[in-house]
Amino acid sequence: MVRIAILGASGYSALELIRILLRHPQAQITALTTRKTEYRHVGEVHPSLAGRLDLRLENHSLGQLAERADCIFCCLPHGASAAAVAELLSYGKKVIDLSADYRLNDPATYKKWYGIEHPDAGRMADTVYGLPELYREQIKSAQLVANPGCYPTSAILALAPLLRAGVISADGIIVDSKSGVSGAGREAKPHLHFPECNESVSAYGVGTHRHMPEIDQVLSDVSGTQIEVVFTPHLIPMDRGILTTCYAQAKGDHDDESLLAIMRKSYAEEPFVRVGPALPGTRHVAGTNFCDITVRRVRGRIVVISAIDNLIKGASGAAVQNFNLMHGFEETVALL
Amino acid sequence: MVRIAILGASGYSALELIRILLRHPQAQITALTTRKTEYRHVGEVHPSLAGRLDLRLENHSLGQLAERADCIFCCLPHGASAAAVAELLSYGKKVIDLSADYRLNDPATYKKWYGIEHPDAGRMADTVYGLPELYREQIKSAQLVANPGCYPTSAILALAPLLRAGVISADGIIVDSKSGVSGAGREAKPHLHFPECNESVSAYGVGTHRHMPEIDQVLSDVSGTQIEVVFTPHLIPMDRGILTTCYAQAKGDHDDESLLAIMRKSYAEEPFVRVGPALPGTRHVAGTNFCDITVRRVRGRIVVISAIDNLIKGASGAAVQNFNLMHGFEETVALL
Amino acid sequence: MVRIAILGASGYSALELIRILLRHPQAQITALTTRKTEYRHVGEVHPSLAGRLDLRLENHSLGQLAERADCIFCCLPHGASAAAVAELLSYGKKVIDLSADYRLNDPATYKKWYGIEHPDAGRMADTVYGLPELYREQIKSAQLVANPGCYPTSAILALAPLLRAGVISADGIIVDSKSGVSGAGREAKPHLHFPECNESVSAYGVGTHRHMPEIDQVLSDVSGTQIEVVFTPHLIPMDRGILTTCYAQAKGDHDDESLLAIMRKSYAEEPFVRVGPALPGTRHVAGTNFCDITVRRVRGRIVVISAIDNLIKGASGAAVQNFNLMHGFEETVALL
Amino acid sequence: MVRIAILGASGYSALELIRILLRHPQAQITALTTRKTEYRHVGEVHPSLAGRLDLRLENHSLGQLAERADCIFCCLPHGASAAAVAELLSYGKKVIDLSADYRLNDPATYKKWYGIEHPDAGRMADTVYGLPELYREQIKSAQLVANPGCYPTSAILALAPLLRAGVISADGIIVDSKSGVSGAGREAKPHLHFPECNESVSAYGVGTHRHMPEIDQVLSDVSGTQIEVVFTPHLIPMDRGILTTCYAQAKGDHDDESLLAIMRKSYAEEPFVRVGPALPGTRHVAGTNFCDITVRRVRGRIVVISAIDNLIKGASGAAVQNFNLMHGFEETVALL
Repeated sequence: MVRIAILGASGYSALELIRILLRHPQAQITALTTRKTEYRHVGEVHPSLAGRLDLRLENHSLGQLAERADCIFCCLPHGASAAAVAELLSYGKKVIDLSADYRLNDPATYKKWYGIEHPDAGRMADTVYGLPELYREQIKSAQLVANPGCYPTSAILALAPLLRAGVISADGIIVDSKSGVSGAGREAKPHLHFPECNESVSAYGVGTHRHMPEIDQVLSDVSGTQIEVVFTPHLIPMDRGILTTCYAQAKGDHDDESLLAIMRKSYAEEPFVRVGPALPGTRHVAGTNFCDITVRRVRGRIVVISAIDNLIKGASGAAVQNFNLMHGFEETVALL
Repeated sequence: MVRIAILGASGYSALELIRILLRHPQAQITALTTRKTEYRHVGEVHPSLAGRLDLRLENHSLGQLAERADCIFCCLPHGASAAAVAELLSYGKKVIDLSADYRLNDPATYKKWYGIEHPDAGRMADTVYGLPELYREQIKSAQLVANPGCYPTSAILALAPLLRAGVISADGIIVDSKSGVSGAGREAKPHLHFPECNESVSAYGVGTHRHMPEIDQVLSDVSGTQIEVVFTPHLIPMDRGILTTCYAQAKGDHDDESLLAIMRKSYAEEPFVRVGPALPGTRHVAGTNFCDITVRRVRGRIVVISAIDNLIKGASGAAVQNFNLMHGFEETVALL
Repeated sequence: MVRIAILGASGYSALELIRILLRHPQAQITALTTRKTEYRHVGEVHPSLAGRLDLRLENHSLGQLAERADCIFCCLPHGASAAAVAELLSYGKKVIDLSADYRLNDPATYKKWYGIEHPDAGRMADTVYGLPELYREQIKSAQLVANPGCYPTSAILALAPLLRAGVISADGIIVDSKSGVSGAGREAKPHLHFPECNESVSAYGVGTHRHMPEIDQVLSDVSGTQIEVVFTPHLIPMDRGILTTCYAQAKGDHDDESLLAIMRKSYAEEPFVRVGPALPGTRHVAGTNFCDITVRRVRGRIVVISAIDNLIKGASGAAVQNFNLMHGFEETVALL
Repeated sequence: MVRIAILGASGYSALELIRILLRHPQAQITALTTRKTEYRHVGEVHPSLAGRLDLRLENHSLGQLAERADCIFCCLPHGASAAAVAELLSYGKKVIDLSADYRLNDPATYKKWYGIEHPDAGRMADTVYGLPELYREQIKSAQLVANPGCYPTSAILALAPLLRAGVISADGIIVDSKSGVSGAGREAKPHLHFPECNESVSAYGVGTHRHMPEIDQVLSDVSGTQIEVVFTPHLIPMDRGILTTCYAQAKGDHDDESLLAIMRKSYAEEPFVRVGPALPGTRHVAGTNFCDITVRRVRGRIVVISAIDNLIKGASGAAVQNFNLMHGFEETVALL
């Protein structure tokens, strides 16, 4: 039994994490933290968990946590996360960081996009990017895993096989994503007020979203060439789900079947990627750790479309997938 | 041309009011106020109005407003409203108060439910309750009109004809209302955060909602007997609309047709009440000043169901209806 | 390992049932049926199940089913269900019927509300009503269980403890329910077309809904007195969830705390009923088998509010709960 | 007073058309048609119009219509529309065709995309495309106007000024659109069933949508060069609105301000196009005839984003705008 602590347990990612871990036979949640001074029961913070878990959210010190837990899931905001992670690693704990702090390799890029000096810059280059479909072996032996961003997961899983196969150009890739509102977190903000985002669609963060350099970095690593995508996220009036529509210039004359075959082969052994000819809908992956993907050729362009649940495959499901890999458990435990 | 000022112009009621008044041939909006120190253009505060009205929201004094406007619509919170209204009346202005401040007649009731001493208690008893279907003649000659609450409008229009006709008992009336989220105002709050209220229904203010004594008062006035309803509002994941389902004990053996006939006769001359056998849906009154009503007999109970747009017939449309009556305009101007 | 067949596997209840049973360590789904002539893979009929279960929906004869399965969940429409159930029982199979066919005890009542002669009327009176909170012991030894309707589950769990305790009157009970659209089934109908029911609330089946006599029957059984409720369902623009607000005349002067204590005591041992002072929201039970309940006293009336997921506690979760009881498994297996 | 008939009056476009025309002082609706044999009152077909217009939907012959009306709005499906339009024109009537029948110039293209021979092919090349921002003068003198498709309106208004100014490349333009469900019409279909499209986003018609050649044709005409866009529509869980995100290769080094200046200048005199730096949201154009547009430069690409109400600027509002131009009325009558 692995004892688990969750840092920053009041948000939506933590809620999903708890839900999943409560189904995990080898995991036991032993501590939940908050930075607030009021310690509330998890059933009050997350009413859906009432009667499921008898813990309060408390402001534990990292030292206390290290005594109570073997593995820590960190759901803190970026910046705060790295500070905590560094200390927890020093206690020999395994850490899965759901923040953005260890996703980028380069401190300068981090500073440019996140606006702050990285508190633990020395560790950035070597931290494993926790996308099992690309970095499974490294994850298995990692002490720290940087859990991928939700948009990057959807974009990278869609594009990586085609880049590797050389059937799309690395130049001029466009990533147009549509996300449910839970991706913006649990804090009430004017533009996330129900009557403001219900019955409306809008783009945001055009050219400035922090997931853009993350997509660049991983696709560049995959393809062996420098990639800069144009990434546009959109806010959709629904709770959960990301649909990502990618556009790339075709190299060669592969038709739909040929493209699907490449995709299928690439993910043949993957338990959580489903490739098919049907156009995916976020409804069909909601509440699951699956990523559904299809690909089409249109007028010399390749259109790749992927769907995930932003809180599961895009966050907490992926985190548990990494947890399983890091601890030698069956990769799908608690995720099906 | 009547020059109009709107006090507290940043909320949803004010937005609807502006939209309606921009279609009114005898109204000219000359001032919009805010209590904030930053003066923004109305097109920034309400992007849907960009290009429609060239005014900023400013922190005008009431004296300045009195110079600029002949009639003032007050969309301030309760308490703040009464203080402003009293001064504006002293300048001889006509005022339509969309707050709750002048709806109740009794200062003690006001204090009990709103938790503060009324700033202008002396005027409470004589202020006209601005529901034209009940108090049209008084509204015509009023200087100040208390615009009704959204829930009370839906409940009173449903129940008043049946109480007057003596076909339902005054005892034990239940009012179960379902409202879209815009009724809760524009301020971002945790429970109105999109992922919190989307895909969910819940009751709130059970036994404690401030519209309960308002319903009591008007139905008591209509029926000539003391009425205390049990009122339960519910929050529904949609923008607009209130559906109110009322339950009352039948007196006599009126069947559906007979009950409908009473209702139809009562509203035969009303331009904004539509009575029919079909079960109303809020969709069909959304964006309109209509109230749709039906009535059924079920096992000795009378079930009356009404639908309104909470921001129009439940607020700003009713306000313009009152405006029209107070100024001798055709009652439906700008409302069809 | 219990081999399981699902009759009528294309609808939403069947989808939920499959999802839950795929997590059940003692259950193996061996057959799915359809009455259509085209046999499609379950992953096409329910895209969310792609890759989870390798079965086609086929038009199996009941004899074939009896060979393949030990226990049958029947998701057929009423009428069709009883015909199939009778035959399956004759093969010695255990059956959980999610249709309405065996919920009512009295053939005449069935005919009145469902408009047809019951195909297996002789079995009606003795069939166990599958609400474990009321009939657990009978369920354990039953060969056939009538799975409760969604609305009745929410109403009965809310009212039964108070009726038993004698703190509410059996006369004049009102049940006002609000349901998500999945409760209406998967068949496309004009009034369930997205733009027709989105952004709208309406009542339906006022005084005529078939769940009304079901509520009557069970509450009458519980209270030992003839009960006739006034039941009004409403359609809410969301997928899942039922919130039921019940109104009853208070007997005695029990306050909120005292009423809650009665409710808590009644459900102290129940794994899936959560009683508390907070007003329940359907969001917090969505995707779970929980029923959340609270109770308040308002002006001499008792207001009881319950929330369930209509497809889980209101259908397929309850069915698996019954399955567990009938087979001697831990009641909560696959349901937490 | 212009007497107006609406052909095919049961759908959403017709509903919006009636709503708008009821506010038009120079228009009188004199006939509504249906191809059904049951003649229902418009208030039954469109409950929101109850009490507003006393007409039934009838199966008038075109000859009868020609006697009753001076101008006909045709909301029939493609194919059916052209047959009716040809006859109505022969009676000397003015016609605004909301179907797709006269949008394309080339019969072969029509046959390729719509699958049928055009019933009135000879008129295709000369029919005016009813986008006032591009073809205002031709509309003024036209007897027949082809009202634009909803997606093309959003894409063409976004791209035309930049193509004309030569600041984007004509090659490789991508149009990624997000539409509310009302755009799919009023007929109940399985994929438009509320629980199927609520809480879900998906692409459809990838590379095959009929609006793609329409966008091609108009942008080619505007730019004087052959353009083929890659167009991907997406279905969004909301009623109304289209957000279109266009991606094009930059020519030259125009920055955001410079691009906005080009856009602003292009639409400086337009009453219904609003250009600004803010990212548009469909909420702010819902219920209006406005198109909101912004433009940004991202990594050498130009991202142009436009928002319209698909039923108004994308259909019935544009139709009335054309009606006003064709009859010499102020262009904005009934549209503000």
